[in-house]
Amino acid sequence: MHLSEITHPNQLHGLSVRQLQQIARQIRDKHLQTVAVNGGHLGPGLGVVELTLGLYQTLDLDRDKVIWDVGHQAYPHKLLTGRYDRFHTLRQKDGVAGYLKRGENKFDHFGAGHASTSISAALGMALARDLKGEKFKAVAVIGDGALTGGMALEAINHAGHMPKTNLLVVLNDNDMSISRNVGAIPRYLNKMRLSQPVQFIKDNLEEQFKQIPFVGESLSPELGRIKEGMKRLAVPKVGAVFEELGFTYIGPVDGHNLEELIATFQQAHQIPGPVLVHVATVKGKGYEIAELDQVGYHAQSPFNVATGKAIPSTKPKPPAYAKVFSHTLVKLAEQNPKIVGITAAMATGTGLDKLQAKLPNQYVDVGIAEQHAITLAAGLATEGMRPVAVIYSTFLQRAYDQIIHDVCIQNLPVFFCLDRAGIVGADGPTHQGMYDIAYLRCIPNMAIMAPKDEAELQRMIVTGVNHTGPIAMRYPRGNGYGVPLMEEGWEPLEIGKGEILRTGDDVLIVGYGTMVYPGMQAAEILSEHGIEATVINARFVKPLDTELILPLAKKIGRVVTLEEGCVMGGFGSAIAEALLDADILVPVKRFGVPDVLVDHAEPNESKTELGLTSHQIAERVLQAFFKQQVSAVV
Amino acid sequence: MHLSEITHPNQLHGLSVRQLQQIARQIRDKHLQTVAVNGGHLGPGLGVVELTLGLYQTLDLDRDKVIWDVGHQAYPHKLLTGRYDRFHTLRQKDGVAGYLKRGENKFDHFGAGHASTSISAALGMALARDLKGEKFKAVAVIGDGALTGGMALEAINHAGHMPKTNLLVVLNDNDMSISRNVGAIPRYLNKMRLSQPVQFIKDNLEEQFKQIPFVGESLSPELGRIKEGMKRLAVPKVGAVFEELGFTYIGPVDGHNLEELIATFQQAHQIPGPVLVHVATVKGKGYEIAELDQVGYHAQSPFNVATGKAIPSTKPKPPAYAKVFSHTLVKLAEQNPKIVGITAAMATGTGLDKLQAKLPNQYVDVGIAEQHAITLAAGLATEGMRPVAVIYSTFLQRAYDQIIHDVCIQNLPVFFCLDRAGIVGADGPTHQGMYDIAYLRCIPNMAIMAPKDEAELQRMIVTGVNHTGPIAMRYPRGNGYGVPLMEEGWEPLEIGKGEILRTGDDVLIVGYGTMVYPGMQAAEILSEHGIEATVINARFVKPLDTELILPLAKKIGRVVTLEEGCVMGGFGSAIAEALLDADILVPVKRFGVPDVLVDHAEPNESKTELGLTSHQIAERVLQAFFKQQVSAVV
Repeated sequence: MHLSEITHPNQLHGLSVRQLQQIARQIRDKHLQTVAVNGGHLGPGLGVVELTLGLYQTLDLDRDKVIWDVGHQAYPHKLLTGRYDRFHTLRQKDGVAGYLKRGENKFDHFGAGHASTSISAALGMALARDLKGEKFKAVAVIGDGALTGGMALEAINHAGHMPKTNLLVVLNDNDMSISRNVGAIPRYLNKMRLSQPVQFIKDNLEEQFKQIPFVGESLSPELGRIKEGMKRLAVPKVGAVFEELGFTYIGPVDGHNLEELIATFQQAHQIPGPVLVHVATVKGKGYEIAELDQVGYHAQSPFNVATGKAIPSTKPKPPAYAKVFSHTLVKLAEQNPKIVGITAAMATGTGLDKLQAKLPNQYVDVGIAEQHAITLAAGLATEGMRPVAVIYSTFLQRAYDQIIHDVCIQNLPVFFCLDRAGIVGADGPTHQGMYDIAYLRCIPNMAIMAPKDEAELQRMIVTGVNHTGPIAMRYPRGNGYGVPLMEEGWEPLEIGKGEILRTGDDVLIVGYGTMVYPGMQAAEILSEHGIEATVINARFVKPLDTELILPLAKKIGRVVTLEEGCVMGGFGSAIAEALLDADILVPVKRFGVPDVLVDHAEPNESKTELGLTSHQIAERVLQAFFKQQVSAVV
Repeated sequence: MHLSEITHPNQLHGLSVRQLQQIARQIRDKHLQTVAVNGGHLGPGLGVVELTLGLYQTLDLDRDKVIWDVGHQAYPHKLLTGRYDRFHTLRQKDGVAGYLKRGENKFDHFGAGHASTSISAALGMALARDLKGEKFKAVAVIGDGALTGGMALEAINHAGHMPKTNLLVVLNDNDMSISRNVGAIPRYLNKMRLSQPVQFIKDNLEEQFKQIPFVGESLSPELGRIKEGMKRLAVPKVGAVFEELGFTYIGPVDGHNLEELIATFQQAHQIPGPVLVHVATVKGKGYEIAELDQVGYHAQSPFNVATGKAIPSTKPKPPAYAKVFSHTLVKLAEQNPKIVGITAAMATGTGLDKLQAKLPNQYVDVGIAEQHAITLAAGLATEGMRPVAVIYSTFLQRAYDQIIHDVCIQNLPVFFCLDRAGIVGADGPTHQGMYDIAYLRCIPNMAIMAPKDEAELQRMIVTGVNHTGPIAMRYPRGNGYGVPLMEEGWEPLEIGKGEILRTGDDVLIVGYGTMVYPGMQAAEILSEHGIEATVINARFVKPLDTELILPLAKKIGRVVTLEEGCVMGGFGSAIAEALLDADILVPVKRFGVPDVLVDHAEPNESKTELGLTSHQIAERVLQAFFKQQVSAVV
């Protein structure tokens, strides 16, 4: 059987180990070839090929439910569940998603993009199953990195307390999150990985086996294999932490040995209550280049399979925001030993790995633990340090209470740097940075800013590390505009002050962050139609520069706000509030992301769908205020 | 020495155990007498009297820093740090706060009201200390309940990975959170509590002792006491989980034996790296009534010390919202086995203990674990259940990402019931439920409602459990209005539909939730001044009833919005957005909570400060739109 013939994972039933190994090779090949062309996550999926095959051979997937944590490790799962033919559309608009979505496939029982959710979701399904009197297996597959996330530990604490609720947790331990793991739990797991299983005590195996409830006669022919797996049950001390927390621990298992995996999973399914199977995998397994550089090949832009080298883009690009960010922060940190950069397992994505390399003492990676990251930052701030918490907009949602309770209520100078704010492209709805303006704006004491380009980013970094209270900066994924950068001598901006970029009497365009340049371009297009716009770069949504904006709004009488974020409660809403508070009754059009989820696509495709290109903005302005259409221009 | 003479905790140095025991009695007496009069937390503070005294005798508090988790266990700390004289003002406006605030006292190094933050904060301070080359002890005191919160476990994972960072975690294990603890970790702790310390191996004590670095000659006279404490270091297996996670574990220690506590803390201070001292305490210790009913006396309204009975209020009160809520939910759950009530250690506060008593299978308490609670709910919803997550508005902040990522992106029918939304009174800024309208409104797929009174609460509960997507309901702490309630036969409300309560041509008052009645009363006052108001009960902030509100706003031409929550991005902001989107340019005054923190006070005191009483609303309307003053009326 070839992988392309598998449209239902139950087709794996009855395949021999040799046949499964063939399928494994085909999965790796398809996975590798697809990601090499489309870009995407590579290492996580390659590491769980055998885990997926072994697990699925022991399950009835018409009934049983597997919840994959994060979803980026679920590419083999996707290839085994009827998506082989469409897999070449991976991460493309209207194509197969890079993460998991319930709507995409009936075997995707729980969507995922953020880490550490799977045990909670699987336990919820298990509780529902028992309440409904149904029978199916609920299985969570979680990485060792994701296991350090607080909510996964909350779920372990809860599940371990429910001996009557059958739940299988498969720990995919590749000894990595995106980067090297952080913390005592991964270190503990690693110790177990390295420990030799103690010799199996043959004498009492039969007896032990009998003590496991529900193991019927039917399994007798398999006894030999199960015996093999049982070895690990007899290992003393290994897994003690999980055992103390109420789980039956089985492991470590070689995650690339199909026979061992199948035997272990079969055994695990017989054990009542919460069970944890510890599977030791190798990230990037089977693609040597990825095995040797597990950080670099966690996720990739298109690359040459033979060399592993990224395929250079056709034209040179301006530097990425993250690169300018890290370069500038390192410069500042060199001058100011009080600056401490904090990341939650996003060192490479945020560029904070540069700080780690240059000033390791001023760098903290807490692992996948956003909540702890922020309160740790608050603690640092109480001692006069300048903590800079660099976290993607979407992941900062995890630390919302800590932002309010530990930073803003105490008015502590923590600098929040929200990378990947706005439209993120191929990662899709779970990763869009859409809500940060709305969710941060309502918190007292918080200042919030966004740069119009990468040079202003530099100045805002200086502004942030000098501010005396909580301050947030949002900036996008992707590249800047290629504007001149400074190597030093940046001046902080005045808090709450915007700037006028262009003047005109017909319409006031107030842009925020990434939408300032499109606003300027729209103004040029409008000018061709005889409409002259004033364009403001607001810089701050809070405090808002009402001194600058309000008189102009009143005078011009037509206002357009531009933001790359949700318009509900967002930047435009702040402008609307300020105008109404000042009794200035002028029409306001708020252009941004409406109240919908934005699917995965190229960022420009998403922007076009949302009507946020400069031509669309110009057209929408003309339609709204001047009853004209510029379709000729567009 | 009497407690009243202690203005600095270092005055405890040199006191004998007998003297400390006297102080302990005085602390208990003052604590008990004050809470009996003012109301407040009782059990937590009474349980840590000796812990506080023993710890403080071993520290130099001009230098060392103790971070108290949650803060409600810090009343003995407050009494030892110069607040004895003012302690009778506990929880009163401008008086001593019921939780911890950095501004209140120089020994309050980190504010707290929510659980599980202390280890992160203390670790941040410890990192700062080492970076600055300073020397002080950073100590976190955390309860066993708070230890199950994910962020505390994230902090343990991080701290356990840093053997060079000295950090002391004192685990105040009273075997309770507000209610009985949930989970495998508390069960594990309890097992340790109950285990007899293994007999000390006398022979190698001296040797073990020498191996501990930094233990100088100066401590030799104390060797006897330390030897006593050392017993526990020699206990095998107890504390294995913490030891595996990189902590040196010492315990369990009798939390009411001062000699043992002092010896143990002295010993702990000598051990480098992260150390956990496990102290077994009794909640409510020293007040027998509270010891026997630890749930009931966690926190109390004013009571008679002799009998423990609550002092009845002078006039009968209408039922509390939480009571109506739980009563109604139980009725519905009896009819619909798919309803599952979920709490995160707030069973008594939310009234969900009634559901537990009646329908234990349809009740889940996950412990202090809001993140897990919500994703568990999402998992239940995928299986067709009707999860009802009942969490205080302020604590739901902890699960913000789970609301977005696991519930709303997947459009799952989870019913969020936000108890204690709006002004909470004596609990102060950490507990105010101010932000939920703003932070929930921006999420796609979410419906959000608030009842005007306890009868509408009943209908909204029916609405919530019947809705096919995510839906939230906010309702206040405290009592309803005494309106007639129904025992059954509630009809769901139409999603997104408000109601007109009163008509008038001069001003449109749109009220939300608790502000509808004050809006009606304000309309009556305005009527006495010849101003006739239309009053709308919006019921839903999302979807907003634009069909009802917009034409009236346009016709009447003056709009006032009323909400008990932050006006930035809140309900009034939603109305403003809708008006501007529809090109209706009328003045809008948004009355609610401005961009400030609201301090602890009686709810009515806070409302008066915020200008939200019915008289103040009437006056503000007259001033805003009719240039009149009603000071005679006010």
